[in-house]
Amino acid sequence: MTSSLRAVSPRIVLHLKPLLVSLPQLSASAFSPRRLFAPINPRALLCTAAARDNGGRSGALTGPPVLEEEESVTKIDVNPPKGTRDFPPEEMRLRNWLFHNFKEVSRLYGFEEVDFPVLESEALFIRKAGEEIRDQLYCFEDRGNRRVALRPELTPSLARLVIQKGKSAPLPLKWFAVGQCWRYERMTKGRRREHYQWNMDIIGVPEVTAEAELISSIVTFFKRIGITASDVGFKISSRKVVLQELLRRYSISENAFGKVCVIIDKIEKMPIEEIKKDLSSVGLSEEVINELLQVLSVKSLTQLEDILGSGEAIADLKHLFSLAEKFGYSDWIQFDASVVRGLAYYTGIVFEGFDRAGKLRAICGGGRYDRLLSTFGGDDLPACGFGFGDAVIIELLKEKNLLPELSLQLDNIVCALDQDLQGAAATIATILRGKGQSTDLVLENKPLKWVFKRAARANAQRLILVGTKEWEKGMVGVKILASGEQYEIKVDELD
Amino acid sequence: MTSSLRAVSPRIVLHLKPLLVSLPQLSASAFSPRRLFAPINPRALLCTAAARDNGGRSGALTGPPVLEEEESVTKIDVNPPKGTRDFPPEEMRLRNWLFHNFKEVSRLYGFEEVDFPVLESEALFIRKAGEEIRDQLYCFEDRGNRRVALRPELTPSLARLVIQKGKSAPLPLKWFAVGQCWRYERMTKGRRREHYQWNMDIIGVPEVTAEAELISSIVTFFKRIGITASDVGFKISSRKVVLQELLRRYSISENAFGKVCVIIDKIEKMPIEEIKKDLSSVGLSEEVINELLQVLSVKSLTQLEDILGSGEAIADLKHLFSLAEKFGYSDWIQFDASVVRGLAYYTGIVFEGFDRAGKLRAICGGGRYDRLLSTFGGDDLPACGFGFGDAVIIELLKEKNLLPELSLQLDNIVCALDQDLQGAAATIATILRGKGQSTDLVLENKPLKWVFKRAARANAQRLILVGTKEWEKGMVGVKILASGEQYEIKVDELD
Repeated sequence: MTSSLRAVSPRIVLHLKPLLVSLPQLSASAFSPRRLFAPINPRALLCTAAARDNGGRSGALTGPPVLEEEESVTKIDVNPPKGTRDFPPEEMRLRNWLFHNFKEVSRLYGFEEVDFPVLESEALFIRKAGEEIRDQLYCFEDRGNRRVALRPELTPSLARLVIQKGKSAPLPLKWFAVGQCWRYERMTKGRRREHYQWNMDIIGVPEVTAEAELISSIVTFFKRIGITASDVGFKISSRKVVLQELLRRYSISENAFGKVCVIIDKIEKMPIEEIKKDLSSVGLSEEVINELLQVLSVKSLTQLEDILGSGEAIADLKHLFSLAEKFGYSDWIQFDASVVRGLAYYTGIVFEGFDRAGKLRAICGGGRYDRLLSTFGGDDLPACGFGFGDAVIIELLKEKNLLPELSLQLDNIVCALDQDLQGAAATIATILRGKGQSTDLVLENKPLKWVFKRAARANAQRLILVGTKEWEKGMVGVKILASGEQYEIKVDELD
Repeated sequence: MTSSLRAVSPRIVLHLKPLLVSLPQLSASAFSPRRLFAPINPRALLCTAAARDNGGRSGALTGPPVLEEEESVTKIDVNPPKGTRDFPPEEMRLRNWLFHNFKEVSRLYGFEEVDFPVLESEALFIRKAGEEIRDQLYCFEDRGNRRVALRPELTPSLARLVIQKGKSAPLPLKWFAVGQCWRYERMTKGRRREHYQWNMDIIGVPEVTAEAELISSIVTFFKRIGITASDVGFKISSRKVVLQELLRRYSISENAFGKVCVIIDKIEKMPIEEIKKDLSSVGLSEEVINELLQVLSVKSLTQLEDILGSGEAIADLKHLFSLAEKFGYSDWIQFDASVVRGLAYYTGIVFEGFDRAGKLRAICGGGRYDRLLSTFGGDDLPACGFGFGDAVIIELLKEKNLLPELSLQLDNIVCALDQDLQGAAATIATILRGKGQSTDLVLENKPLKWVFKRAARANAQRLILVGTKEWEKGMVGVKILASGEQYEIKVDELD
């Protein structure tokens, strides 16, 4: 990416104009399903802006101003908005498969599922200097002049809910969520404006067993989907040991800590001279910068101990590596001082999943954030967690040829051989569905050739044919599609 | 609700100010998980508006303008934004249970799951005169000056995707979706600004078998969750027979059709004089209005036939009632001419699920919409579908005392009796999780009393205790929590 490409970009700020207009009849049926749609007047599509100021039902009844006399219907853009996705059946099967694995692993680890509003108060996401989040929020103002935003991540909402629950939720909380997040940014290959994220968080455990357990669950997830330790690994470090102690040693203000982390996080993605310039601009001397960069290049815990001396943070890291052995994932992890994670809020151990081939962005990442709750005005609780996106892992699975083949699977397809027998076919379908079998009922009078094609496409196990002669005897025809075996059976013997 | 309450309401229009500012470094790690958060500067929370115009990373590094010297952190509002919900574990279990039933029924009927962007082009939702949707859209403008909206319903996106897929998707399509929808409206009891909606749609079947199948799936869903035909019923009518034929008879323009439907839909919720006034305002004479209201009060198909004569539409309705018998849900349905549904786009049969006690709004509803695709510029395809919200059904289940008891269920809770055995406990937990058992690992050194309490709260089946003496023998202690039975077992015999 050339620097000119990143030169200028419009800032996104969304506003809401609160206008007073007459209110439509308050429909008592509001929010009852299927009430929200009407044929679209082609003209309305062409002049939504003009129509926008006309509220209220009686107003609406006069119709929107006609800006265009053209009566032919302009085809709408059939693509989803830029940066978003449709999920047709094949994509949805993949998403379900991925989420199922996220959820299954969380369940195995005894975590409980939670979710939060997709639309949150903007204040929840507005960051301290040093992160670009403000410019990438999908945010706007509501009529109460409250600024709201589509969530860019789940953790702030989690923190809000934890504070809200207070002492009513007995610690530790082990919560997970799979939710959609938005970020309004420049679109490049493989980067969308919405994605889903699997989060697991442990609230209330100060010990490093929590981090060890979280990494264990990600490893379990990887194994389930066929990813091995030779495909991916985790880089592990601790901000406490690497950055905090170093900054303290040179009496750098605590305030610079978060900013330094965000800069350091870009170390593999930016020229080292720019990193140095940025570090210098937050007040670090050349001496500190050089020592910092030296320490960050350390890839062994012993070597780090030699430089910084032992202490609580080093002991934590050692404990984590020893626990990893007991959990059985030692070969997945390595110490790497350069990992700091791009978020200013981590306070201790941080970790990042990466593909060993080095082609992809971080697959997942997380760490300890013991001081997050107090930034929202709550009482701090020890906490750690991770986020795992749905995009990079799919890229990795594609590359490794590990994407599962997920086709529609049907137990039965039921077809009446005569239009008069549609009701009979409905009866048969109802019986089979009652037995828990997925059953496609052919709703039209179609030739058998068509039915076979449909059955094959849906990978149906059986074709149930309802013909006049058989039906008169209380029987139906059954064809096992894999074997071609064919027989008649009494309806009440169908299973 | 008094009329004064519905007098005035601000109109919601969201705008985005596209401002040119310097772009932050394009983070190559954007959208990698856990990168979006940093400690919130309490001052930033107090002056987000002031900070809003400052984009770019270098700008951000200077920090937001300091409007407040106060260093104490103001507690954020820990409630979700007005009209939205958090899903703590207990609520999430209920949501999962409900969605599981939606999805299970859809699967039984051979439908495939789909989804669409939550954020769609506003044009997709802007309606013809007669519906209040424009005033209730969560909409704003993006930096490409495209107006986008949080979806108020799923059907327009479905239509968009069907057009996009074109001939590549062999008909009929049987698709379902469970998605969140937004509607910015006045909050009253039990009415939120977001809800989830289960949709099932059949695209490509002109026959009434499609409607019969859809109603059958809803009935199956009701039965699964314990709702009977004495709790709920379906009112079924056909716009074609009731309204269209009547309007044609009086040479009322086709254009008035949708408007009339929207007015008629409020018939049970508004004084009849207001209905008449509204009908008159769209050009209906007193004579037509009176005949219309008379026809709408008809509750029997035969009586309707007497008034309007037979025809294709009446035949369709009769066929639907006869199919209902074969599907086995005759006792759930009844003809009711007054059902027209509030959406202007239905073209044929419409139906509505209602609670027989008459306390709640419509539970679900749907119908045939054969001309929807052409309003988007696509080729029309026969189509019908329904929407089923997550709110009213939960109210009904509460009222009927049918809400399921959904508690956390754990197979095991594993606890080290000595801090030195945390690793051993991790090994045991890993073994059990490897066997597919949900296992909570106690991550801290806690007294047994605490562990028992946690085990009870999580409804754990077994407590696995890792003690020094047992561990030296390669054994662990097991306590079956329901029976109190307690024994030691070799680790490799644990199952």
